Amino acid sequence: MQLALLEAKKAYDLGEVPIGAIITKGDEIVAASYNRREIDKNALAHAEILAIDEACRKLGGWRLVGCTMYVTLEPCLMCAGAIINSRIGRLVYGSFDPKAGAVSSLYNVLGDNRLNHQVDVVHGVLSNEASLLLKQFFRDLRTKKQT
Amino acid sequence: MQLALLEAKKAYDLGEVPIGAIITKGDEIVAASYNRREIDKNALAHAEILAIDEACRKLGGWRLVGCTMYVTLEPCLMCAGAIINSRIGRLVYGSFDPKAGAVSSLYNVLGDNRLNHQVDVVHGVLSNEASLLLKQFFRDLRTKKQT
Repeated sequence: MQLALLEAKKAYDLGEVPIGAIITKGDEIVAASYNRREIDKNALAHAEILAIDEACRKLGGWRLVGCTMYVTLEPCLMCAGAIINSRIGRLVYGSFDPKAGAVSSLYNVLGDNRLNHQVDVVHGVLSNEASLLLKQFFRDLRTKKQT
Repeated sequence: MQLALLEAKKAYDLGEVPIGAIITKGDEIVAASYNRREIDKNALAHAEILAIDEACRKLGGWRLVGCTMYVTLEPCLMCAGAIINSRIGRLVYGSFDPKAGAVSSLYNVLGDNRLNHQVDVVHGVLSNEASLLLKQFFRDLRTKKQT
């Protein structure tokens, strides 16, 4: 999760909402990415989607069985759906997202037994650090708008 | 939707689950795509995701305001979430997906007022054609497995 936070800081430095994601398989890091929605001008460019894209390319298949995703913020519907579709086995995330979180806050889609894949979830890992970074980003944004 | 069906047929011919998607803005088609999960070896390569990616590139921004998506099958959680995130205004789809549909069947995420964007939905357009194509695909697949 320390590495996911470093990815989030890269987003912060580029003026993007600071969210970072890492995918591991065993001891190996197979993908590392951060939110790039504004730079890429693309609604899909969340940290989790970019990480899944990178992991599929690296591992040469669409099934990321045995992989764990670490992400600094609770995934939205799109990203939680992508985690299910890619068969990631485990998700570790930092802060809750009360406005759009689809894993604990608004929905619990990763535990939905009607779907053909469920994901083990751990939350709250380095959540203070992830949350502080987001708060600082939005504070800076308001200050910039006022000046 | 006729064009979305033609896209689905391209997927069929390539041995992919036949699902096609089109995005329009006014009278213009801004994206056309089909499911390529096996060929691309990528869990993200659903017809809707590829269409949103193409539309963002073509229109030069992540907000697809004023756009309509036509897709032959009810979107899953990932794709429904991507439709919300890209601010698509209207979704027209063909068949229900009772196993994974996130718009009517298992969830109604596009009508969720807790989220920051809602989408107008029309369903059942050319649903028999879309559904027949899918049935034929899975029948072929079973026959191939038996021989």
